[in-house]
Amino acid sequence: MNPFIAAARAVFSTMLQSDLERGELSLSDEFKPQHDISAVIGLSGEASGTVIVSLDRAVAENATKILLCQDHADEQDVIDAVGELTNMIAGRAKSKLEEFSMSLSLPTVIVGRDHSIRFAKEVRPICIPFTSKWGPLSVEVGLIANAVPAS
Amino acid sequence: MNPFIAAARAVFSTMLQSDLERGELSLSDEFKPQHDISAVIGLSGEASGTVIVSLDRAVAENATKILLCQDHADEQDVIDAVGELTNMIAGRAKSKLEEFSMSLSLPTVIVGRDHSIRFAKEVRPICIPFTSKWGPLSVEVGLIANAVPAS
Repeated sequence: MNPFIAAARAVFSTMLQSDLERGELSLSDEFKPQHDISAVIGLSGEASGTVIVSLDRAVAENATKILLCQDHADEQDVIDAVGELTNMIAGRAKSKLEEFSMSLSLPTVIVGRDHSIRFAKEVRPICIPFTSKWGPLSVEVGLIANAVPAS
Repeated sequence: MNPFIAAARAVFSTMLQSDLERGELSLSDEFKPQHDISAVIGLSGEASGTVIVSLDRAVAENATKILLCQDHADEQDVIDAVGELTNMIAGRAKSKLEEFSMSLSLPTVIVGRDHSIRFAKEVRPICIPFTSKWGPLSVEVGLIANAVPAS
C-alpha cells in the first residue's frame, strides 16, 4: 500500500498545499459508506485492480478551487478536478509499481449521497483513511497480481 | 458501438435467456440519472476508456437468480453477478476490438439510489438503453483511441 499512501500525500502536498494525516488501514470487504464524491480508476497489466479516491464535498470543492485558481467551482469543475486528482494519485503510485507494468483507465466519477462502492469478490481492498485540512477522504485500493486476463 | 451492442445482446440471450430490445443511442455528456446498480470496468491499451452497465434492481435480481440457479439472491450475490455480467459484456466487446489490444480492469459495483456517474471531460460517452424482460438497463461506453498514457 505504501506507493498509494506516498502518492496521495505527495499530490495533496504539492498540488493542494494540504498535509494529509493518515488514519488506520482497514480491509474493506464489507459494505461501507463512502464520502460524497468518488473517482474510480481501473488498473490493468501484470496486476489488475481498482483505485477509488472518495472525498467529502468540502474537500472536493476546496481542492477544485485551488487546482483551478478560482474562487468558485461549479459541479462540472468539481467532477473534473476529482477525476484529475485521482489520476495523479494512481499515476504516481503506478510509476512506483513498475514491475507490474500496469496502465490506467480513464477516471470515472460517482456523485450521490448514500452511494457505496463494492469490489469484485476475489479482491480484498484496503482502505486508507486520511484527513486533510478541509475534512476526510479515503483511498481504497484492490489489486490482484498475475490475474488471469479476462476472456 | 456495435461490438458493445452485440456483446450485451449475446450475454443476455445466452446467459439469461432474455432478448434485449434496444432504444435510441444518445451522447451522455450531461448529468444523467442511472439505474439502481451499476458496474464500471476500465479499459486500457491502445485505446482507453470505461464501460458502465447500469441495471434496474429487478433486472439485477432476476439475472442473479438465473446465473446462480437459485430462487433467492442476497446483496453480495447481486453485486457479484452484476460485476460478472459487465465483465462478460466488456470481454466480448474487447475481443472484437483487437486492434486496440485493450485489457480490462476488475469490475467495481456501485449501489445506491440517486447515484450518478460522470466521465472524464475529454470523453463523449455513448449511452445505449435496452429493455430486458425484467425492465430497463443501459450500457455506456466512453473510449478514446490512442490516448496519451497517463503519467
